[in-house]
Amino acid sequence: MPGDASTTGTFLQGLERGLAVIRAFSAESPSLTLSEVARDVGISPATARRILLTLEELGYVRSDGRRFLLTPRVLALGWAYLSSLDLGDIAGPFMEELSAKTQESCSIATLDLPDIVYVARVPTSRIMTVALGVGVRLPAYATSMGRVLLAGLPEPELAAYLSSLKAEELTDRTVATTDELRKVIGRARTDGYAMVDQELELGLRSIAVPILDSRGRTAAALNVSAHVARSTVASLRTDVLPPLLECADHISTALRRRGRL
Amino acid sequence: MPGDASTTGTFLQGLERGLAVIRAFSAESPSLTLSEVARDVGISPATARRILLTLEELGYVRSDGRRFLLTPRVLALGWAYLSSLDLGDIAGPFMEELSAKTQESCSIATLDLPDIVYVARVPTSRIMTVALGVGVRLPAYATSMGRVLLAGLPEPELAAYLSSLKAEELTDRTVATTDELRKVIGRARTDGYAMVDQELELGLRSIAVPILDSRGRTAAALNVSAHVARSTVASLRTDVLPPLLECADHISTALRRRGRL
Repeated sequence: MPGDASTTGTFLQGLERGLAVIRAFSAESPSLTLSEVARDVGISPATARRILLTLEELGYVRSDGRRFLLTPRVLALGWAYLSSLDLGDIAGPFMEELSAKTQESCSIATLDLPDIVYVARVPTSRIMTVALGVGVRLPAYATSMGRVLLAGLPEPELAAYLSSLKAEELTDRTVATTDELRKVIGRARTDGYAMVDQELELGLRSIAVPILDSRGRTAAALNVSAHVARSTVASLRTDVLPPLLECADHISTALRRRGRL
Repeated sequence: MPGDASTTGTFLQGLERGLAVIRAFSAESPSLTLSEVARDVGISPATARRILLTLEELGYVRSDGRRFLLTPRVLALGWAYLSSLDLGDIAGPFMEELSAKTQESCSIATLDLPDIVYVARVPTSRIMTVALGVGVRLPAYATSMGRVLLAGLPEPELAAYLSSLKAEELTDRTVATTDELRKVIGRARTDGYAMVDQELELGLRSIAVPILDSRGRTAAALNVSAHVARSTVASLRTDVLPPLLECADHISTALRRRGRL
């Protein structure tokens, strides 16, 4: 029921702003002053101060005199989501099997527009394990999992996403115009899978399929990604797609049986 | 400045309760009704409703009629902390090197009492990759990283932790009495490392050292963990400890140079 809270006057602005303050911290801004927080979030310095002092008292923020930093307690918030999905236990064994079978890494992501968010990952090699872990966000339009997830959106949501999208040509192969994206997303809907060939990053190919909930709606996406040196577009389709579809089906069944979808 | 916000009347209760509602979801409670949220957090149903509707409008919660669930947007909160640490980029290469050298997995954790929280991990094999990833929480007292982090606490904080601790004997080897824990934590402080031999889980040994900030305080812990079949207590000390200390030193230097510690 979007809109309900604000139209009925029950909306808690302090909560909204507090969450926005947490999200103001990033790799580019690992520590922030009170006035930087006020500016970044668009609130008064007095409000920023109240929020930062509250977060500090709750242990989510620490202060080094003038600058504020997040604490590891913040991870408990993300962890609440991950553990409620319980993908590690439920999907983990199937993903291990798929990764062993294909000799490639596989991942599960969900949609938080305009991004996809990695919620589980089984790497093959140690390379990029730390860098591309759970919680990582990538632009939906340029990833195979993103296209599968976009294909599962109701038409009005997809239209809203596409109309506000500022797609970048991340490589010279990136499909980045709205018309073309509409076509590839439509194709993903028809085919039941999406393939991205070096559109996110040169050297990287990826193929993804949906994980469906009990009503047949797309709840998440499962992919296998491979370096171009180890795969062709044809081999992904003939060798990887069948076990990928089978794995998504197993995960979907297991998640539904455990009441997670 | 703990206590400041509440004593000066600037404390935002709506923010505190909103964060508590997010944390009420877990593997055991992946979805909650309004009255379950009210009961678990200790707030009135009317307040629970305001918070849930606000979180829903902000996209952190979705509702399936009667039951509420977290959405992947919640991960963006934890991600703000992880990306502000930027460990993937900064510590990743050193961890890869240590893991290659020792042929064992290595991790970095920070303290959020009474737990440690994994903030980076390089697995050796695919086993447990999904299950023991970033964001995982383990009890500080039974882990090598926990003991190193506890050894770095100011005495009053350590005393407060130990006095409220309900330590469990997770295996028949777990040091779980306050007196004994005080001793092993003191030893970790003197030795500059901590080893745990199957105290968390039978079959698992682990050795950890501190990552120090510019003032010589313990900011995080780095460990190598190994199955008993592949390691002895002596081999961890003679073969793993030296590269582990060297790696922690490299990471500490790199983090300080980038202003993260």
